[in-house]
Amino acid sequence: MTASRVVKSGGTGWSAVAPQAYKSDTESYCEVTRRVLLGGAEGDDLQFELRYFEVAPGGWTSLERHQHPHAVIVLVGRGEVRIGSERHPIEPFDAVYVAPGDPHQFLGGVTEKLGLLCVVDRERDRPELLDEDALTP
Amino acid sequence: MTASRVVKSGGTGWSAVAPQAYKSDTESYCEVTRRVLLGGAEGDDLQFELRYFEVAPGGWTSLERHQHPHAVIVLVGRGEVRIGSERHPIEPFDAVYVAPGDPHQFLGGVTEKLGLLCVVDRERDRPELLDEDALTP
Repeated sequence: MTASRVVKSGGTGWSAVAPQAYKSDTESYCEVTRRVLLGGAEGDDLQFELRYFEVAPGGWTSLERHQHPHAVIVLVGRGEVRIGSERHPIEPFDAVYVAPGDPHQFLGGVTEKLGLLCVVDRERDRPELLDEDALTP
Repeated sequence: MTASRVVKSGGTGWSAVAPQAYKSDTESYCEVTRRVLLGGAEGDDLQFELRYFEVAPGGWTSLERHQHPHAVIVLVGRGEVRIGSERHPIEPFDAVYVAPGDPHQFLGGVTEKLGLLCVVDRERDRPELLDEDALTP
C-alpha cells in the first residue's frame, strides 16, 4: 500500500511519471506516448489505472478491441475517436465510453495534439489489433 | 449493458449529465456540485465511476474519510487538497491519490473555482464525516 500523494502536472508533463512506449510493437500506432499517473505498479490500493495518452498531430493509436471497457476524458487538444464505423470529433472534457468488444481508435488533430485520460480496470484482457476491414459493416 | 458513446462537454457543462446535489446533508460542505460522467447507474460495464465535482471559489467539500481510495485529476481552476494535517495547492492536471482511511477535503481557490475528476470503485463504503479535531496529529 502506498501513501496519499499529489503528482504535480507541470502542464501535462508530470515530471515524476516517466513516459513509456505506448505498445511494444511499433507498427500499429503512430506518435503516441503513455504515462500511468495513478494505479499502476506502484502499489496503490486502486482497482483501476489512470493513464494519460498523448497523440501527436496526425498521429493515431492502435485500432483495437478488447473485453474491458474504456472510460476516457479528453484533457487537452483536439482529435477524433473512431468507434466501430463511426467517427466523433472530441475536445476537452468530452467523455467517451467504449463498450466491451467495440473496435476503437483515437486520432490526433490535423494541427493539434490530443491528450487523453483513459481509465481501465487494473485486471483486464489484452487488446486484439484489428485491420481496417474490421470496421466495414 | 449500454452502448459506446461520447458525452460532449461544452466546456465543463456536459449538458447530457444533470448536476446533482453533492451530498444529502447540506451542512458538511459549501458550494459544490457533482456530475456522474461515466459509470453511474446508466448500466455501463464499468467497475468504477468517473465523477466531476466543481467547488466554487471559497467553497469546500466534506472533511471525510473512507476505506475506498480516491484517484483525482484536476481539470480546471485552482484550489487546495487537505490530506491528514497537510495542505497541497493543486492546479490542472495534478493527480491526487488519497489512500484508504486518510482524512481529506478539497477547497476551491480564493477567486477561482476548482473542477475535479474523481474516480472511485462502483462498490464502495460510505464516507465518514469528520470534525477538524480529526486532523490534529
